[in-house]
Amino acid sequence: MPLTPDQQREIEALRAESHTTRRATVLALEKILYQPIPILDHGLIRVIDYMGDDGAVVQAARVSYGRGTKRVSEDQGLINYLMRHRHTTPFEMCEIKYHVKLPIFVARQWIRHRTANVNEYSARYSILDNEFYIPAPEQLGAQARGNRQGRGDTLEGAEARHVFELLKDDSEQLYAHYAEMLNEDESGRVLDPARKGLARELARMNLSLNFYTQWYWKTDLHNLLGFLSLRADPHAQFEIRVYADAMLDTVKRWVPMTHAAFTEYGMGGAHISTKGLAIVKRLLAGETVMQEESGLSKREWRELMQSLGRED
Amino acid sequence: MPLTPDQQREIEALRAESHTTRRATVLALEKILYQPIPILDHGLIRVIDYMGDDGAVVQAARVSYGRGTKRVSEDQGLINYLMRHRHTTPFEMCEIKYHVKLPIFVARQWIRHRTANVNEYSARYSILDNEFYIPAPEQLGAQARGNRQGRGDTLEGAEARHVFELLKDDSEQLYAHYAEMLNEDESGRVLDPARKGLARELARMNLSLNFYTQWYWKTDLHNLLGFLSLRADPHAQFEIRVYADAMLDTVKRWVPMTHAAFTEYGMGGAHISTKGLAIVKRLLAGETVMQEESGLSKREWRELMQSLGRED
Amino acid sequence: MPLTPDQQREIEALRAESHTTRRATVLALEKILYQPIPILDHGLIRVIDYMGDDGAVVQAARVSYGRGTKRVSEDQGLINYLMRHRHTTPFEMCEIKYHVKLPIFVARQWIRHRTANVNEYSARYSILDNEFYIPAPEQLGAQARGNRQGRGDTLEGAEARHVFELLKDDSEQLYAHYAEMLNEDESGRVLDPARKGLARELARMNLSLNFYTQWYWKTDLHNLLGFLSLRADPHAQFEIRVYADAMLDTVKRWVPMTHAAFTEYGMGGAHISTKGLAIVKRLLAGETVMQEESGLSKREWRELMQSLGRED
Amino acid sequence: MPLTPDQQREIEALRAESHTTRRATVLALEKILYQPIPILDHGLIRVIDYMGDDGAVVQAARVSYGRGTKRVSEDQGLINYLMRHRHTTPFEMCEIKYHVKLPIFVARQWIRHRTANVNEYSARYSILDNEFYIPAPEQLGAQARGNRQGRGDTLEGAEARHVFELLKDDSEQLYAHYAEMLNEDESGRVLDPARKGLARELARMNLSLNFYTQWYWKTDLHNLLGFLSLRADPHAQFEIRVYADAMLDTVKRWVPMTHAAFTEYGMGGAHISTKGLAIVKRLLAGETVMQEESGLSKREWRELMQSLGRED
Repeated sequence: MPLTPDQQREIEALRAESHTTRRATVLALEKILYQPIPILDHGLIRVIDYMGDDGAVVQAARVSYGRGTKRVSEDQGLINYLMRHRHTTPFEMCEIKYHVKLPIFVARQWIRHRTANVNEYSARYSILDNEFYIPAPEQLGAQARGNRQGRGDTLEGAEARHVFELLKDDSEQLYAHYAEMLNEDESGRVLDPARKGLARELARMNLSLNFYTQWYWKTDLHNLLGFLSLRADPHAQFEIRVYADAMLDTVKRWVPMTHAAFTEYGMGGAHISTKGLAIVKRLLAGETVMQEESGLSKREWRELMQSLGRED
Repeated sequence: MPLTPDQQREIEALRAESHTTRRATVLALEKILYQPIPILDHGLIRVIDYMGDDGAVVQAARVSYGRGTKRVSEDQGLINYLMRHRHTTPFEMCEIKYHVKLPIFVARQWIRHRTANVNEYSARYSILDNEFYIPAPEQLGAQARGNRQGRGDTLEGAEARHVFELLKDDSEQLYAHYAEMLNEDESGRVLDPARKGLARELARMNLSLNFYTQWYWKTDLHNLLGFLSLRADPHAQFEIRVYADAMLDTVKRWVPMTHAAFTEYGMGGAHISTKGLAIVKRLLAGETVMQEESGLSKREWRELMQSLGRED
Repeated sequence: MPLTPDQQREIEALRAESHTTRRATVLALEKILYQPIPILDHGLIRVIDYMGDDGAVVQAARVSYGRGTKRVSEDQGLINYLMRHRHTTPFEMCEIKYHVKLPIFVARQWIRHRTANVNEYSARYSILDNEFYIPAPEQLGAQARGNRQGRGDTLEGAEARHVFELLKDDSEQLYAHYAEMLNEDESGRVLDPARKGLARELARMNLSLNFYTQWYWKTDLHNLLGFLSLRADPHAQFEIRVYADAMLDTVKRWVPMTHAAFTEYGMGGAHISTKGLAIVKRLLAGETVMQEESGLSKREWRELMQSLGRED
Repeated sequence: MPLTPDQQREIEALRAESHTTRRATVLALEKILYQPIPILDHGLIRVIDYMGDDGAVVQAARVSYGRGTKRVSEDQGLINYLMRHRHTTPFEMCEIKYHVKLPIFVARQWIRHRTANVNEYSARYSILDNEFYIPAPEQLGAQARGNRQGRGDTLEGAEARHVFELLKDDSEQLYAHYAEMLNEDESGRVLDPARKGLARELARMNLSLNFYTQWYWKTDLHNLLGFLSLRADPHAQFEIRVYADAMLDTVKRWVPMTHAAFTEYGMGGAHISTKGLAIVKRLLAGETVMQEESGLSKREWRELMQSLGRED
């Protein structure tokens, strides 16, 4: 677990707090509030705060004076309807805040989601920790053939071992040189009083993209689902997908009705194009349709057949 | 007070709720949670939900595992520093949600602040209430002379009385015709079973801009302060300023340190231009400076002298 | 045509200009640049400026030093791929600016699209024109039965005539009273020198939501397509759909490849849910599936059958 | 100059293009369109496209049918007024697009400005170039004492030489290992046919933050000025400030009136706080004011005295 005893204590202190509030409160989420969920070798996510629940979605859709909720089945029906018909604004009425520790190359993908609030640990101001990501053996994928931006088979044997060594040795060397240039160690102790030490804002550039950074990241439920639909997708890079998967679990705890609707209408299912629909209609009418005369490219045809469960 | 007994009851039910939470909780804001604050003749704001407190600003600035707060004076000092140097992202870590009832022409100014989440009562879907804004006598300003987008002296006597009558009679007539076209009254009862009734999405166009609408409006603390610095400003139109003033009070309850810093460095004070600063330096050096040779336009000169307390 | 001779002259002057540029230039869009396209009874849209073309999408996707385009079929293939897989950022690299004249109730729907830049004609500062929207006879829909936010049959006979009269008479009366309160006519001439005249920022509240306003509206191609997919949709209110339809035509002139991809993968086609896909698979396997045992609500079932062309 | 002959040719081809357009066109900006402006040791910016000019700001403020511009002095006066009173929306009516090549640690600061459109070169998809940033000797600052996030004296002698060597050797080693893991060289040629090669999305994590990336970055004039006011500021890190300075020059070519107003009212001048204004008034009244009794902290006092040109 990537926590120091001090951090552990700080978290425990927060978890021990208990306040009385009139606000909508979600027991299943309170249970894990502040608690670190380990991701990768040194990463984590923690839910730090939240606003609203499934009822807040319903309440906003109805612009009511009170809670706005009715029977559970009606509320679920309304949430399904909103999700299906892209009435997205009621989902913006819930907000969540995470503390995330993640490799810099993952942070660089993540930050592209702009409708969020972010405070990142500043390496201009502070010294970064000596923590870097080394993929687990089963994650050491070779470059994919078909998909230029994915990974294929797993590297094995000597090639795998060599990659591990290069990654590990380089990271260790970089951090040692980082400290040497700073003329400070991880805890801020001066190494050689005769030297000045390079500015932090410069020395950090010697660290590689697998070093861990951390940030507070806050967003509304609608934009969180947008993030998850892209990053919990099988096409997303594994190292960001594991974060998205863990966040999807927190969404399930927080807003179970919205999570169900999202699974059914958001992430699940498939968008079928105009030509694709025409082909489905022909197939339903009993016709045989071949890719060559379908008007679809080979790739589109394959994607459509996958959606229809007709891969062969 | 613009509430029906049903609405009153719904609010009381929410206020009677009491939950246990590990989240940061602000007692002074809890006190007024859900409670309507009357604005204008039929309007209101209510704080519906909130996330975070002054500590959340500090915590985000320090990207800490725990609460992040230290001694009160240190926290206030950090918040002042952040405000003064435009380090705005920590203030985005707090979120607040209001329920607002407001005239449509005010809503049209308000909605221009885009970094917010909004759910408005739908007049395509529902029938609007028969509530419209009539200015109080002391608000019946004549067109300003100097400032083409403001109001000057108050209208008096026959002219004022005539304006009142026009506004009131027209609004009443419009609502009567609205109901007649809908073939429904305010409560949704059909007026004449022999008629079909015009679609709601069309009939609403006969209502004037002083009719009240309502919405849920949610934003982060940084963008809220941006809204308030423009809308609680003396140059803002009175009818939106009264909302901003009431919201500023809720900010004081919610995040008193941030409110203090905002008063000192945000809304208070003045931005002095390059030429303005040069003039201040000359004045401090004991020189006499005249507008004509200052390089400032008359209007800029007047604004500068006001900031320096040198109006004559 | 809703233009004064002065406006006509100003537009002609702009259309007569001719500059030499190194920027990507689209002949089909230049042809209609600045030209008003009439919408509804007094509205219009005009393309005022644009940046980029289909090539700019391709260029951004390839982050190239040059134009980035290859053969037409490759460029279309890349654009289709980007659209299909929600790689939206390259479409943000094109920008367009419209001048729009539209009824206020349409403007209120439109402004909900926040990722755009807007400058609206200010009724605090200027006097609004005496122009209001009266629906054409075939647009006078009754309230829909099935869909609470739509319109159904067209009103006819005495009821239709009465609605027309109410709308027209009320609008005329409101404008007359607006001028009377201002103590100015449409051209700014003072009516009665003995009166002060109500401030513009107040008098405007007596106008109804069918009065026309105008604005400059600028957005990027990705967000424009988002706007169009909601507002050119059959479920959108007729009065905004006619604007969206006209804008869709300008998109076709501007970026024909993106327009084709949008038609095929964006607006066209359908999103099938998880349960929906399971039903399609059963149907393709020759099974008979009934709504009752499908797991879909009646409404969802009807929507799915419509997508599959199986309405009966 | 960091360009290959192919890139050079592509740029020349674009610069040789000449189109006729009705759009507002800015000669001074056309002159440098597409042309790389070198920054740091391997970086560059290029203006790739633009929309609008100073006239577009004026036109939007007036919501006019024609160009909207009047006499030059009136236009400058209006632009000054808009800038001074934070009427920001007219400045959003101009748009500019840059191609930027920059070290990753600079890109990480830059991307925090969210109201912009970005397409970055993908290291999941392509192989990064062997180009990394090594500070010039005069930029090798030691950690600042007073300001924890800045740099102070320049390192000298043996310490400086050692830092150079560490940075250079580490970067070269990392790229060599990157290629070795990929089993490909910079041009994509396979090194050892017996090996599979690590996926690009993984191998990139071995590169350090001083490696160069590149992107297309597009934003509106208002948000560009916001970016520049923070990043062309003396407190910004040198390595991003050099980009901001070069962009400020392009703004001067593009919209000279807006640039003048920004210099006078935006970047120039100073914001004086409530307490600060009270002190200025006392000073102007001839009083002596000491920091201790001023109500300002030492740091605030120093900042105020600097603004007033009273440092001693």
